[in-house]
Amino acid sequence: MFSCWLSRLCRGLSTPTGRITHRIHGSLSRRLMLGSRRRIPELSSFVARTNTCGELRSSHVGQEVTLCGWIQYRRQNIFLVLRDFHGLVQVLIPQDESAASVKKILCEAPVESVVQVSGKVISRPPGQENPKMPTGEIEIQVKSAELLNACKKLPFEIKDFMKKTEALRLQYRYLDLRSFQMQHNLRLRSQMVMKMREYLCNLHGFVDIETPTLCKRTPGGAKEFIIPSREPGKFYCLPQSPQQFKQLLMVGGLDRYFQVARCYRDEGSRPDRQPEFTQIDIEMSFVDQTGIRSLIEGLLQYSWPRDKDPVAVPFPSMTFAEALASYGTDKPDTRFGMKIVDISDVFRNTEVEYLQDALSKPQGTVKAICISEGTKYLKRKDIESLRKFAADHFNQEVLPVFLKANRNWNSPVAKSIMEEQRSELIRLMDIQEDSVVLLTAGEHRKVVRSQHYDLVLNGSEIGGGSIRIHDAELQHYVLATLLKEDVKLLSHLLQALDFGAPPHGGIALGLDRLICLVAGAPSIRDVIAFPKSFRGYDLMSNAPDSLPPEELKPYHIQVSWPAESEAEKSSLNQPYHPES
Amino acid sequence: MFSCWLSRLCRGLSTPTGRITHRIHGSLSRRLMLGSRRRIPELSSFVARTNTCGELRSSHVGQEVTLCGWIQYRRQNIFLVLRDFHGLVQVLIPQDESAASVKKILCEAPVESVVQVSGKVISRPPGQENPKMPTGEIEIQVKSAELLNACKKLPFEIKDFMKKTEALRLQYRYLDLRSFQMQHNLRLRSQMVMKMREYLCNLHGFVDIETPTLCKRTPGGAKEFIIPSREPGKFYCLPQSPQQFKQLLMVGGLDRYFQVARCYRDEGSRPDRQPEFTQIDIEMSFVDQTGIRSLIEGLLQYSWPRDKDPVAVPFPSMTFAEALASYGTDKPDTRFGMKIVDISDVFRNTEVEYLQDALSKPQGTVKAICISEGTKYLKRKDIESLRKFAADHFNQEVLPVFLKANRNWNSPVAKSIMEEQRSELIRLMDIQEDSVVLLTAGEHRKVVRSQHYDLVLNGSEIGGGSIRIHDAELQHYVLATLLKEDVKLLSHLLQALDFGAPPHGGIALGLDRLICLVAGAPSIRDVIAFPKSFRGYDLMSNAPDSLPPEELKPYHIQVSWPAESEAEKSSLNQPYHPES
Repeated sequence: MFSCWLSRLCRGLSTPTGRITHRIHGSLSRRLMLGSRRRIPELSSFVARTNTCGELRSSHVGQEVTLCGWIQYRRQNIFLVLRDFHGLVQVLIPQDESAASVKKILCEAPVESVVQVSGKVISRPPGQENPKMPTGEIEIQVKSAELLNACKKLPFEIKDFMKKTEALRLQYRYLDLRSFQMQHNLRLRSQMVMKMREYLCNLHGFVDIETPTLCKRTPGGAKEFIIPSREPGKFYCLPQSPQQFKQLLMVGGLDRYFQVARCYRDEGSRPDRQPEFTQIDIEMSFVDQTGIRSLIEGLLQYSWPRDKDPVAVPFPSMTFAEALASYGTDKPDTRFGMKIVDISDVFRNTEVEYLQDALSKPQGTVKAICISEGTKYLKRKDIESLRKFAADHFNQEVLPVFLKANRNWNSPVAKSIMEEQRSELIRLMDIQEDSVVLLTAGEHRKVVRSQHYDLVLNGSEIGGGSIRIHDAELQHYVLATLLKEDVKLLSHLLQALDFGAPPHGGIALGLDRLICLVAGAPSIRDVIAFPKSFRGYDLMSNAPDSLPPEELKPYHIQVSWPAESEAEKSSLNQPYHPES
Repeated sequence: MFSCWLSRLCRGLSTPTGRITHRIHGSLSRRLMLGSRRRIPELSSFVARTNTCGELRSSHVGQEVTLCGWIQYRRQNIFLVLRDFHGLVQVLIPQDESAASVKKILCEAPVESVVQVSGKVISRPPGQENPKMPTGEIEIQVKSAELLNACKKLPFEIKDFMKKTEALRLQYRYLDLRSFQMQHNLRLRSQMVMKMREYLCNLHGFVDIETPTLCKRTPGGAKEFIIPSREPGKFYCLPQSPQQFKQLLMVGGLDRYFQVARCYRDEGSRPDRQPEFTQIDIEMSFVDQTGIRSLIEGLLQYSWPRDKDPVAVPFPSMTFAEALASYGTDKPDTRFGMKIVDISDVFRNTEVEYLQDALSKPQGTVKAICISEGTKYLKRKDIESLRKFAADHFNQEVLPVFLKANRNWNSPVAKSIMEEQRSELIRLMDIQEDSVVLLTAGEHRKVVRSQHYDLVLNGSEIGGGSIRIHDAELQHYVLATLLKEDVKLLSHLLQALDFGAPPHGGIALGLDRLICLVAGAPSIRDVIAFPKSFRGYDLMSNAPDSLPPEELKPYHIQVSWPAESEAEKSSLNQPYHPES
């Protein structure tokens, strides 16, 4: 585990929203675009309409068309604007006596009713074109109309400028989905995922493999939803990720796996988190960090929407410490500038107990990195979060050493560092004034293989992964000794590593957050068709819900009612509005 | 609901396994093939190898290659056969002194160890080619080798001819996945699904939308897994299908939806069923049965593996009664031969109480179909299953009337049918000797819209769907009055239908079963990477598993131990082998 955090790789991506200028790096993306040239989908195959409302242009004038859609609005019983997912088109309501029945249907149907109309595409009279409307040069001269479904009075108008509370939008999600923004977001998501699949499956031979969601609990799985089985006292868990399965697929020789995987995490009430979320889950055999990095660069470049500026590759990359230093600032201009240096020899005779301990172990080492001008931009809270990260993730203590302009050491351990060691360090690490040196010590096993990397887009972490440990003994040591996990729960994975596991690594991208950033949406709830509220409720169907006791019986469980809310039991059949 | 079962559509597909000759219907499929022409995937991008083992041919002779794979076997410490997902290749173990370290690695590594070798592709000496092996003309002259991971002694040999018990295969699934058959099945599945996505998304503008799996329970959801939430007594359920959500998406104007959807059904122990399974879930607005049928024909044709004979379209189709009659026989030669006839007028003065009742209602009708030569092939059990189907699905009673050669009616109601009615029926229905007439009566509302259809492949039902009821009032009537369901649980769907729901319909294909049939696999477990045993257990990780009580606490549940198995509690921490 030693010093993994030092090489943790963070990656910055240019913003997709155009706020920061993109660097254009077109040759690869042009080649990929050619490979993915596709026909325009047929949007009216199989159905009653001949065309979509939104596609009609001057070139369609004279054609007889049948359209299906929703009544957006009417003006003076003369014009009706019909809407489908593709756009709006103006329909002329016939005024002559012979078409009285058609007029009646089109004038009496409430707004948001569903109608089918047939007629001819005609040019609008000169001067009446609407340049703001893509179909603004034409209109439909209707010959027949059918009311397919009348709409009752709506709880709110389906107009994008309407302000609604989010609770109302979630309660009537099926109406909110008719908005331009939700239609756009869900279609963008579908298209981006489809392009990712083309890249992975068709261009690079990945195999799309579904892994189970009724699983065994994982060590430390306190955030896992549980599912009682028909076996008394036995539970499945919903997985936080397909991590174990994708590694087992590598052991199984599947070579390159991906999945658009549903994952589950029960974090209680947290804003902008969902109890179920989706990740683009990828794993490859015989790969290193560079390979994963190229894969992800190509994947995002290929799937990036064409109406956004292309993604520049290679992605700027930086170590964890560098990224930390640059949070909230512009991109750092140092890349791979810091080296991890083994300084064990300097401290063979140290009096610092922590370092002594480490060096007394068979594989004990002391390593360090030097952050130039660190005292200028590393705040105390940065150092603290770095120490916490190292402690949480790698069970490593980090000792920061600040070198002040007067060349006095400023650190809890500074006074225990001898002058000779000090000079040697300065020479080895190329320490300058205002440098910050970060020291860590521990047992050095073959863990510089468990490299971890993150993909960061506009300050949001949207991906993370690592080159895995494929050595059973080492993995056991990490789990049992360093992470203090219950190894029994992972015995099948440990055993699998013993039976010819190839070296492998992978990454997982948070799809909801990625699409959210690309779409410029305010919340991940805006890129999910049916999201839960921040308290985990489906406000439309009212889930979770109470169950009759007989439905718990086959699962051998009963509810433990908290003492203070005994009263709730009697109100079980009342409608419950948790967010109100 | 009335008479829906009469028009229930069954479809037969030619067998994909070549046992029955395919009819070739190439024009559409050729056009589609051109549209989907694709480049060959790059299988060695991003990784340490230059080539896969299986791809090397004479044309590679002279090339320097790096290969990664598993040691399949060794002969006399001279030859080593290396395997990856793509195939086998023969490696020459160097015998000269200077390459002693390479020889040591390749000779000492146990079978199924993972190695990386670099060397030159050379032709095999004349006479030593192996025509049975795709790479049989060449071998690898190795220059360097690295042992990436040594394999411990295996529980069974990874050879396809080895017979293993299925429980052992499931316990060591990651080893079983290395077999040719599992590699083939999972790759076939991935490729077929990818082609389906291309057809739906790229050719026909469908939107891939993810729907939730933490849901509200549905009416009659006794087979739904339950998930306790952090709200005392409140549970989510895992969905048996995304049915409600896909209909709500149509109300939301998404127009054409699809999803490769994970579904859940807790059926306890049933052979060849899985507690979680996958369906290709499709829904369209403004579509009728013919449209769905064309869509499915095109979908299967486009996604059908090229090394199988192409799928013939249009699919042969038949009514439910016809299909029933033909079960176990050859394909019936009647197509669309039977008409549903409204015979209400014949029975205006009937004495049959059941028919009287129906006709006394405002929309009451009596309808019938006549099955020619039905007495020859309809067995009593066929009639019974048809009656049961109608009763279960549509709350309709079916009265079979057999017409014997002597023209005597043979039926419980026969004696109540007057001679005049009899003659009129014979004329209207074109009743012949040996015909069977099926009568049904009920309220005729606008339900000839709720048509149901099934897709049947080689006698296995792999798909089913319907044109939905988009009228809120009618749907309420069907749910509450006919199906006796708790309408409260579906109030959001009923309300949605009131707010401008378009006419819509769809279908769901059982993906596991479809792939199983196409692959010719003996069980759906052979086309799923990590299936559960027939008792719902994951034999590899041992799920479901017991949980410590503190993990149940946040969910306000406790286990109700059955009295007879109190003893089990004390053995909670013992390994448990449910299938042994």
